[in-house]
Amino acid sequence: MRTLNFSAGPGTLPIQVLEQAQRDLVDYQGRGLSVMEMSHRSPDYDDIHLGAIGAMGTLLGVPDTHDVLFLQGGASLQFAMVPMNLMGPDGSADYVVTGTWAKKAYQEAQKFGRARLVASTEEIGHARVPHGSEMDVDPGAAYFHYTSNNTITGTQFHTMPDVGEVPLVCDMSSDILSRPVNVAAHGLIYAGAQKNMGPAGTTAVIVQKDLLDRAPDSLPTTLGYKIHSDKESRYNTPPCWAIYIVGLVCRWVASQGGLTAMARINEEKAAILYERIDRNDFYRGPVEVESRSRMNVPFRLPSEDLEARFLVAAGEAQMSNLKGHRSVGGIRASIYNAMPKSGVEALVGFMDEFERQNG
Amino acid sequence: MRTLNFSAGPGTLPIQVLEQAQRDLVDYQGRGLSVMEMSHRSPDYDDIHLGAIGAMGTLLGVPDTHDVLFLQGGASLQFAMVPMNLMGPDGSADYVVTGTWAKKAYQEAQKFGRARLVASTEEIGHARVPHGSEMDVDPGAAYFHYTSNNTITGTQFHTMPDVGEVPLVCDMSSDILSRPVNVAAHGLIYAGAQKNMGPAGTTAVIVQKDLLDRAPDSLPTTLGYKIHSDKESRYNTPPCWAIYIVGLVCRWVASQGGLTAMARINEEKAAILYERIDRNDFYRGPVEVESRSRMNVPFRLPSEDLEARFLVAAGEAQMSNLKGHRSVGGIRASIYNAMPKSGVEALVGFMDEFERQNG
Repeated sequence: MRTLNFSAGPGTLPIQVLEQAQRDLVDYQGRGLSVMEMSHRSPDYDDIHLGAIGAMGTLLGVPDTHDVLFLQGGASLQFAMVPMNLMGPDGSADYVVTGTWAKKAYQEAQKFGRARLVASTEEIGHARVPHGSEMDVDPGAAYFHYTSNNTITGTQFHTMPDVGEVPLVCDMSSDILSRPVNVAAHGLIYAGAQKNMGPAGTTAVIVQKDLLDRAPDSLPTTLGYKIHSDKESRYNTPPCWAIYIVGLVCRWVASQGGLTAMARINEEKAAILYERIDRNDFYRGPVEVESRSRMNVPFRLPSEDLEARFLVAAGEAQMSNLKGHRSVGGIRASIYNAMPKSGVEALVGFMDEFERQNG
Repeated sequence: MRTLNFSAGPGTLPIQVLEQAQRDLVDYQGRGLSVMEMSHRSPDYDDIHLGAIGAMGTLLGVPDTHDVLFLQGGASLQFAMVPMNLMGPDGSADYVVTGTWAKKAYQEAQKFGRARLVASTEEIGHARVPHGSEMDVDPGAAYFHYTSNNTITGTQFHTMPDVGEVPLVCDMSSDILSRPVNVAAHGLIYAGAQKNMGPAGTTAVIVQKDLLDRAPDSLPTTLGYKIHSDKESRYNTPPCWAIYIVGLVCRWVASQGGLTAMARINEEKAAILYERIDRNDFYRGPVEVESRSRMNVPFRLPSEDLEARFLVAAGEAQMSNLKGHRSVGGIRASIYNAMPKSGVEALVGFMDEFERQNG
């Protein structure tokens, strides 16, 4: 029996993708070998690799000015690669700190140059993202970095920051492919695959090509974006299996109607869950309403004891990974693309029942 | 029908491993979710992750003085991480250049400090590895780097270089798990998984713990070995699927009798193929006999035209990826652990038949 997996990441994947990967695992499309055994220079893998790059580009409407790369090392390596590649000598970059990962990105950038803190919501426990008026952009900044969705505290930017001519850089690890994105307005977007896009092991980077020459020659070779752009993400052996699964997920998203349809479904799912949280005082959402994430929905119960019992009872009802991040506690339901509306409805039904028995 | 896959990497995997991964892909051991969907902090993934680390440690006899890490970025990133972590300020390191990858490692190290060329076989087309007497070790070197097996030209060190007290660093990407290794004699061993150990997407690093403190604080956070050692390779989300498959492959190697048995089988397979090459002048091995690799067996035919026809005919006989690396041409049969003796015998039978028809 399939569990309802509310994990914040690695997260649930579409069952159709898993079933296709299973069918083809030993013998890919009658070729007599697994995707995991294919030379990364073979014609079959060419189709998989370039197909995944193409599918992601089509879904997101990536313009010709930008490249789609599939790298390794997760968002954590991007925290370093972004400043190493884009800050330039004596440059300065703007950072917005809206949570744990945004702060790590900001701190990492300080190793490579001047990272300027534009705004932080740390004092209010990251209960919302900053308003536009709170973000004082440096027009001379090498770039402006923000985190579109904050996985731990459950906040999300519902409009892009307005930064004029400064290149926007965005960590979209936990909401990429959940809604349409204005890629052209971004200098660089990065996202670890393991939340909304595939398994852990590859990171999508969408980068404006005319930024690629900023990087100094002294970088470790594989930490420069340019070589991966020049070699279509095959300078060295790529994480073929993870890229293959991302390609399947992109096709699944397309089959659901693409990002506009996906966004509508995600809004519906989030609305059902937030409506239940707001119905009375038993459940309580810590995030300000206008900043609520449609991907990660944190909530509290009247006591930590009740929260612990909620998690046990949920597990018995085949609903897993609902525990909030250890740094904030409480409950968190991650409802990424692959979580069906019926899964959210089942969770709400469980919440109703739990309240009846314990409220 | 399963093809006989002689790819140099990503390479063939044990069919038993693929079948188990297929059975468990959608629903891992009745848990109701895929390994690709598991939180990397969940108890089920704990077992997979620590199980793979343990299985690799047991197979290789890794002593308590060393740690087994699973990282990302391939051997190419290790070309940078090794000097960044181990060279130290004003340090110098020794490099042996025995092929394309060894040279890339040497060149990359020059970005981070003084890399000294101890020996190179470039002038003789890397037709053998250097003799001990040709390697003049600097006793003050931060480390001594060599490549145990050269995938492109098909040479292999059959004894470790003798470097006294200098830490030995070895790129074992293309022969790890093919034979017993004296891990205690090495400061650091690294290997991309995709040749003999699993799918592309993770790199095993076995490092002597007392070398971990050499790294400067200025490194990109995820490029320091120490943090991965402290966090058991889960500082950030690891490439869970690739590590899972590596764990299965390690268990398969153990089921074959471990590394001593594996080495005997690999010697037998290589002997069968080299015997055929040496039988007359139709096939010709470019590597000096005492340096021949037991993993990658390159050979030539009397003409490039015959080589092209050989490859076409082999493909029709379900033998794939026999084309030599584009930089050297010819034929190359990679006969990693997962290539059964029967596969090598089939190749030899095909070579006999091809000679009969074209000799």
